[in-house]
Amino acid sequence: MTGVAIVGASGYASRELIRILLNHPGARITVATSRQDESPRLSTLHPMLAGRTDLACEPFNADQIAEKAKVAFLALPHTASMAVVASLRERGVRVIDLSADYRLTDARVYSEWYGHPHTDAAGLAEAVYGLPELYRDRIPPAGLIANPGCYTSTSILALAPLIKENLVERKGIVIDAKSGVSGAGRAPKLTTHFPECNESFAAYNVGKHRHTPEIDQVLTDVGAGNGVGEAVEVLFTPHLVPMDRGIFATIYANPSGQVDQAGLIELYRSFYRESPFIRVSDQLPTTKDSAYTNFCDITLRVVRGKVIVLACLDNLLKGASGVAVQNFNLMFGHPEQTALML
Amino acid sequence: MTGVAIVGASGYASRELIRILLNHPGARITVATSRQDESPRLSTLHPMLAGRTDLACEPFNADQIAEKAKVAFLALPHTASMAVVASLRERGVRVIDLSADYRLTDARVYSEWYGHPHTDAAGLAEAVYGLPELYRDRIPPAGLIANPGCYTSTSILALAPLIKENLVERKGIVIDAKSGVSGAGRAPKLTTHFPECNESFAAYNVGKHRHTPEIDQVLTDVGAGNGVGEAVEVLFTPHLVPMDRGIFATIYANPSGQVDQAGLIELYRSFYRESPFIRVSDQLPTTKDSAYTNFCDITLRVVRGKVIVLACLDNLLKGASGVAVQNFNLMFGHPEQTALML
Amino acid sequence: MTGVAIVGASGYASRELIRILLNHPGARITVATSRQDESPRLSTLHPMLAGRTDLACEPFNADQIAEKAKVAFLALPHTASMAVVASLRERGVRVIDLSADYRLTDARVYSEWYGHPHTDAAGLAEAVYGLPELYRDRIPPAGLIANPGCYTSTSILALAPLIKENLVERKGIVIDAKSGVSGAGRAPKLTTHFPECNESFAAYNVGKHRHTPEIDQVLTDVGAGNGVGEAVEVLFTPHLVPMDRGIFATIYANPSGQVDQAGLIELYRSFYRESPFIRVSDQLPTTKDSAYTNFCDITLRVVRGKVIVLACLDNLLKGASGVAVQNFNLMFGHPEQTALML
Amino acid sequence: MTGVAIVGASGYASRELIRILLNHPGARITVATSRQDESPRLSTLHPMLAGRTDLACEPFNADQIAEKAKVAFLALPHTASMAVVASLRERGVRVIDLSADYRLTDARVYSEWYGHPHTDAAGLAEAVYGLPELYRDRIPPAGLIANPGCYTSTSILALAPLIKENLVERKGIVIDAKSGVSGAGRAPKLTTHFPECNESFAAYNVGKHRHTPEIDQVLTDVGAGNGVGEAVEVLFTPHLVPMDRGIFATIYANPSGQVDQAGLIELYRSFYRESPFIRVSDQLPTTKDSAYTNFCDITLRVVRGKVIVLACLDNLLKGASGVAVQNFNLMFGHPEQTALML
Repeated sequence: MTGVAIVGASGYASRELIRILLNHPGARITVATSRQDESPRLSTLHPMLAGRTDLACEPFNADQIAEKAKVAFLALPHTASMAVVASLRERGVRVIDLSADYRLTDARVYSEWYGHPHTDAAGLAEAVYGLPELYRDRIPPAGLIANPGCYTSTSILALAPLIKENLVERKGIVIDAKSGVSGAGRAPKLTTHFPECNESFAAYNVGKHRHTPEIDQVLTDVGAGNGVGEAVEVLFTPHLVPMDRGIFATIYANPSGQVDQAGLIELYRSFYRESPFIRVSDQLPTTKDSAYTNFCDITLRVVRGKVIVLACLDNLLKGASGVAVQNFNLMFGHPEQTALML
Repeated sequence: MTGVAIVGASGYASRELIRILLNHPGARITVATSRQDESPRLSTLHPMLAGRTDLACEPFNADQIAEKAKVAFLALPHTASMAVVASLRERGVRVIDLSADYRLTDARVYSEWYGHPHTDAAGLAEAVYGLPELYRDRIPPAGLIANPGCYTSTSILALAPLIKENLVERKGIVIDAKSGVSGAGRAPKLTTHFPECNESFAAYNVGKHRHTPEIDQVLTDVGAGNGVGEAVEVLFTPHLVPMDRGIFATIYANPSGQVDQAGLIELYRSFYRESPFIRVSDQLPTTKDSAYTNFCDITLRVVRGKVIVLACLDNLLKGASGVAVQNFNLMFGHPEQTALML
Repeated sequence: MTGVAIVGASGYASRELIRILLNHPGARITVATSRQDESPRLSTLHPMLAGRTDLACEPFNADQIAEKAKVAFLALPHTASMAVVASLRERGVRVIDLSADYRLTDARVYSEWYGHPHTDAAGLAEAVYGLPELYRDRIPPAGLIANPGCYTSTSILALAPLIKENLVERKGIVIDAKSGVSGAGRAPKLTTHFPECNESFAAYNVGKHRHTPEIDQVLTDVGAGNGVGEAVEVLFTPHLVPMDRGIFATIYANPSGQVDQAGLIELYRSFYRESPFIRVSDQLPTTKDSAYTNFCDITLRVVRGKVIVLACLDNLLKGASGVAVQNFNLMFGHPEQTALML
Repeated sequence: MTGVAIVGASGYASRELIRILLNHPGARITVATSRQDESPRLSTLHPMLAGRTDLACEPFNADQIAEKAKVAFLALPHTASMAVVASLRERGVRVIDLSADYRLTDARVYSEWYGHPHTDAAGLAEAVYGLPELYRDRIPPAGLIANPGCYTSTSILALAPLIKENLVERKGIVIDAKSGVSGAGRAPKLTTHFPECNESFAAYNVGKHRHTPEIDQVLTDVGAGNGVGEAVEVLFTPHLVPMDRGIFATIYANPSGQVDQAGLIELYRSFYRESPFIRVSDQLPTTKDSAYTNFCDITLRVVRGKVIVLACLDNLLKGASGVAVQNFNLMFGHPEQTALML
C-alpha cells in the first residue's frame, strides 16, 4: 500500500483523483493539502465525497508529505507547482504534476506562452512526459511526471500514428477542439457563469491557447524517429461546449501520399494494441460514451482528399486524473488498468 | 414617443427590457446608466444588442435623466434603488423600480428580511405594487411602481382567485417553486458556476427566501376584501433548475370546503378574463411554452383532497421586464399588450 | 464467483448494472439477453462498454440462464417481468426484478394502477421488497427481490424515520419530486425529445403516478409496528428536470407534536447508522453530489410549523441498479458496499 | 395586409415563422395546414402560441390557399414540397419553400444527394435562391423562393467575401460546423433523445451531409463573377451540440496571397454594409448572442498562415424562418427588417 499525497485538493481534477484512489487497492491517501485557511475536510470541499473519506486538509508541508507519502499528485495552478516540486524531490517524494509547469521541455517556450520565466531547471531536466501510450517505458522509473493536458492528450493520441508513420504533412494540421466547461476549472467567472455559457457555443483563445506548443512538441518528438526532421505545427482552435465533461477533437490533415480509410483504422488498431484505454472504432465517437471513463475513442475518415481524425475523452479522467493514476500504476508496479475501469 | 431611462443597464433584466423597448412604438430609450467606469455602449454590455442600438451608458445623473426622460426603469440591487428614487421623483420623473425596495409596505418587515433599514418612507408611501392583473386601476396614475418579483408574481397569480374567493385555508399553503439560473443574476459565483449547477437540482434558502413576506402581504391584501381578516402565510421553498429561464410553482393548498377541478379552472378563466397575459388551461404547463414570452400559464388539479395549482412564467419577462413594460403601458396610455406579444 | 444473468440488457438501468458488475469481485456476467433480433454485443447496445466486455446478447432462454447463472437481474418493462419470473424460479435461479411487477403486495392495487391483471400470484407471495435500509434482514434468503422504484426509494428513505417514530400525520404528506430525464427510459418520445424537454421544467402525471401506491404501502408497513394502525397516504407530484440523472424530493409533513430541527436530524443519523449509503447532513443536498454514486442524501428543516425533508439520489444507481447490487451483495454474502463505492 | 399560408405547421420552423408573422404589420396568416388528422389548432400543436392565435389547421387544399393567401410558406420535408409547389404556382400563389427541394439547381446533384429523382423541373427553373445578402435583387419579383438551409447560410455568409474577392484557395476549405438540436427537427429519435444527446458532443454524417453540395454551388456562383472559373469544393463536417438553438461554423481556408486580419474584417464590414442582419465584429462570437434573433455574427482571424472565419446564427431564425420573412419582406415591398428585429 503506497502512501499518497494530494497537493491542491479543492479542484475538479483532485476530486476525481480522490474518487479513483479511494478504490485503488495499492494506494492510500495519507495527506491532502489546500491553500484554504480552515483545513477543511475533503468532504467539505467536495460534498460528493462524504461517506467515503474523513480526511482533513492541511497546509502544504514538504516534510510532512515526505513522512507520510511516497508520491505526491500536484493539482496546482501553473507556477505554483514549480514552486514546490524541488522541495518534494529533495525529500525523495516522487511527483505526478498535473499542471503545465513541466510539460514544455524548453524553458523559453514556456515563458513565451505562459508569461512567466521557468524557475526549476533541474525539475525540467528530470521530468518525463506522462502519456503512457507513447512513453510507457520511460514512466516506471520517473521521479517527476509532467502529466499531459486534456486538449493535448486528445490531439496527440489522435495524430501520433499518422505522424509516426509519416502519412500526413506536418504543417497545416487543423485541430478543431471542443471542451466541456469543467475544463475551465472551478473558479467562477463570467464566461463560465451558467446563464452565459449554457445554451451557447463559442470559440476562445483562437490561435493563442497554451496547449498549442505542447502538441507541437510531443508530435514533433513522435515524428523524429522516422528520419523526417520537420517539426509539426498545428493550428489549434478550442471551443466551449455547454456540458460538464468531455473533449472532442476534429482534426484535418493533408495526406502526404495515398491513404485509405479502412487501412488507417487498421493502422491505429495496431498502433494502440497494447494500450487498454484507446478504443479505435469504425463508428463515430460521442463524448458521452467516454465520459466518466478513462477511455479515449478514435476513428478516422477520408473525405475529399483529407484525412479526418475524430477523437474524444473525458477531460477530467483520461485528460487529467485518470492518466495520472495510469502513471502512478506504471511507477509503482500495478497493472496499468488498476482502479481505472470505470 | 416617451423618453425612457434605463438605470442599471448591465444585468439580464435590463437587457430584456431594452430588447422590448427597442420595438415599442411609444417609447424611446434616451438614457442608460451603468456604474461601470468606461461608459460602455449597451451593445458592449450585451453583445446580443449589437445592430439594434448604439446608445452608450452614462453615470447616473438625476438632472440629465429628468431632462431626457419621463420615466426611469430602475434595475438596481436592493438598497441602491432606495438611494436614487427620491432624486428622480423630485424632478418629476416617474419610476418603475424592479428591485425589492418598494414592494413591502411595512418598513419593519423590509428591514427584517433584507437586513437594512428602509430609508425612503415617502417613496414607500407613494409606491403602487405593479401587478396589473390585480391592481390594474391603481397603476395608470402612479408615480412610483414597485415592480413585483418573479417568484412572487408566479405565486400570487396562481393563488389570487383561491384566496379572493376564500376557497382555501390561509395557513399552511405550500409553494414549491423552481427557477432557472438567470434568476440568480449576472454576477458569477460558485453556486451558479456552470460545472456546479449544470446537471444538478437543489433547494436553497429554505424557509428564508425574501419573496416570502411579499407573497404573504399581497395575498393577504387580496383576501382582505371578502370579510376574512386572517393573514395568508405561505411556506415557500425555492429550487434552482439547470436551465436559463422560467419559474415553475407547484402549490398545495387545503380547501376550506368542497372543491371541484373543472369548476376551479372555470373560476380562474373568469377571474383573469380581462388579463391578456394569463393563460388558464386544462393542460399541465411547461416553462418552455412561456419562456421568451410575457405569458403566465396556470392550471389546477384536485388530488386526494388537496388543491394543486401549477403555474409558470419567464422570470426575466413576465417575472421582471415584461411586467415592467405592462406597467409602462398602463401608465402612458398604451394598450397593455403593446410590444409584449413576443 | 457467482454467475449472473442480465435479462433485458438494452436500457439505461442495465447499462449501469453491467458497469458495476464488471468491477464486482464476486460476480461474473455469464449471460445477457435482449429482445433485439441480431444478438448484439453489449458494447454495441452501449458503446460506453467497449473495451470492457465482449459479451453478446442471446434471446431469453430459461434453461440456458439456469445453467450459467445463479441469479438473474431483470430489467424488463412491467408485465414482461411477470411473464418470465416463474420459469426462472422453477429452475432455481434467484431473481432481482427491477420492474414494478412484484412491488405491490396486493394484486388488485397492481391491476388498478398498472391497468393489467397480475398473473403471478406465487411470485407475489414470495417476493421481498428490496430496500436494504428497511428490510436488510429479509433480503439474504430471498428468492425473488422486488427492487424498488427510484421515486419510491427517495420518498421512503426520506420519510421512514418520521413515520416509524410516529412524528408526523399520516395523511396529507406532500411529496414534490423532481427527476432527471433518464428516469423516463431509453425509448424516444416527444416529451423526452431534446428540443422539447431541454430548458424546460414541468410536472407530469399529477395525481396519477404509479409510484404513489408503492410509497403508501411501504410507509404504511414501516409505521405499522408502532401501534398506529392508520395507513399512510401521500400526495405525490413528479416533475421532469432537464438533466440526465438524479431525483430530488421536497417533502412536506405536518408534525403530530412538537418537533425540533436538530433533533430530527439526529434521529435520522441514528436511524441510518448501519446504512452506509444514507448520508444525513445538516446541509441542503444537491443531486449532483449523489449523481454517479449509490448514496442517498437527506436533510430536514422545520419551517412555519411544517417538517420539510429534502432528499436526493441517482435514479439509475441508488434508485435502480445500485440498490440491485446492494441486494445481490446481501443475498450472496458480500459486504453491502462491495463494488458500490463509486 | 397580405394573406399568408403556412403549409406544414407542426414543426419548429413553422412555429417560429408564425411567432414572427403574428407581429408583422403587413402579413396575416389566413390558412395553416397540417397532415395530422384532427385539424388541430396552432395553439394545440404549439402551446407556446396559446393566447396569440386561434387558427385551426386544415388539410392541404391548393384552391383554398389560392383563395385566401398570396404567398405560401412551405415547411415540409423534402420531396413533400416538390409535390405541391406546382399546384400553388399554377394558381398564382407565390411560394417560399423552406425545404431543400429547390435549392440545388442541378436535378442530378439533387437526386444523388437526396436519393430521389427531382420531379418538378419547371419549379427548379423558376426558383430563386433566397439568401438576401447575396441575391437581394433577384428576390422581389420571384414566384418561388428556395429558402436556404441553416448550415448553408452560416457557411456561405462566412465565406462569400473571401471567395468573391478571390482571396482564398477554392479547394480544401474546411467547414467545421456545430448545430443545436432543434436543427434535427421535431420527430423523436434515439440520437435526439435527451439522455443520449444531452451532455454529449459528436460529429455526424461526416463527408455525407446534404448541405455540402448546396454550399459548393452557391459559393461557386459567388466566385464565378471574378474571372476565376474554378469550382468551390468544401469539406463540411457537422456536429451536434447539446443546446436548443444556434449554428456555429469554424472555417479554415488557405489564403491565395498575403492577408491581414484587420483588413479582412474591414472587407467584410464593407461587403455587408447594406445587410442589416450581418454583424461583422472584432470579437469572437457566441451562438447565444444571435440566438432568438435574425442576426448572423462573423469575425475572422489569421493564424499560422490560415484564414479562420468564425460565424454563427440562430438555425431556426436566420437559418430558416427569419430569412424566410426577409424574403417575404423583399417580395412584398416591406423594409427588409420588418418584424425581424427580435
